Amino acid sequence: METLQALVITPENLLSAWQGNRRLTRRVIEAFPEEALFSYSLGGMRPFSDMVFELVGLSHGIGGIATGQWPTSVELFAPGDPAKPATKAALLALWDQTTDLINETWPTIPAERFQESDLSFGTWQGKIWWLLFYWSDNEVHHRGQGYVYLRTLGIEPPAFWDRA
Amino acid sequence: METLQALVITPENLLSAWQGNRRLTRRVIEAFPEEALFSYSLGGMRPFSDMVFELVGLSHGIGGIATGQWPTSVELFAPGDPAKPATKAALLALWDQTTDLINETWPTIPAERFQESDLSFGTWQGKIWWLLFYWSDNEVHHRGQGYVYLRTLGIEPPAFWDRA
Repeated sequence: METLQALVITPENLLSAWQGNRRLTRRVIEAFPEEALFSYSLGGMRPFSDMVFELVGLSHGIGGIATGQWPTSVELFAPGDPAKPATKAALLALWDQTTDLINETWPTIPAERFQESDLSFGTWQGKIWWLLFYWSDNEVHHRGQGYVYLRTLGIEPPAFWDRA
Repeated sequence: METLQALVITPENLLSAWQGNRRLTRRVIEAFPEEALFSYSLGGMRPFSDMVFELVGLSHGIGGIATGQWPTSVELFAPGDPAKPATKAALLALWDQTTDLINETWPTIPAERFQESDLSFGTWQGKIWWLLFYWSDNEVHHRGQGYVYLRTLGIEPPAFWDRA
């Protein structure tokens, strides 16, 4: 196919960039003191744990990326759900389950899918590649905010360049 | 070529995502009060203008992306250089010049270049696609920090989802 000559990024590239970013975000979660993770904020913003719940909820859209069958919400937990992680260890466990979910689902995404448009979560229309970029941008955005939280708590954040 | 079947993102996709992010970053620069742009910070971090100089310096690596001829530094201005923007208007003008530079240079990047590895700025080795992702991540990271600066200044930041 002629048009494929103009394509320059592989699915493996995309997955490696995303998971590299997710490894760094995991280290940022780890760097927070337990209480500050769930309570500390600046400028009327959310605690970092609430940002992480949003990131995990978006990542669970990976099934929609692969199949077009989307979760109806990015909220994984109803208000008051006792299963919602309330400790750093539980939040990290949720993060790691999500890592596995992404890795297991990724190889099932058809290559042509990345240039298709879909209504993600029943709400946001966009091409699949764009949705993935947006989710990753959203993660980097909130993680950058987590860096400011850590700095103002007197904690040196993990190195930004390290994605190992 | 068989391997091209696995490529899923076009150069035009990458450019549109980057410039969409850059349009949002421009609005964040605009949202800062003049003095705060150059002096306000949290947690011992840099003022937002200093982060912007870093972003502009990295973006000037676009020539290296296209040709392999890299600037020797991400610093565009020597210490004390009177040409270094010291007002919001001058910083926005530098930003817009950089926008044009990226748009003019982008079509000259050979398609096969994105999967080549190079030593950017004589310092950082990586594949071209990865360097571009990293620069964009770095922009989103610092812009997210700018959002916290704005919030703590009592200023509503531009909408994150708007890339128009």
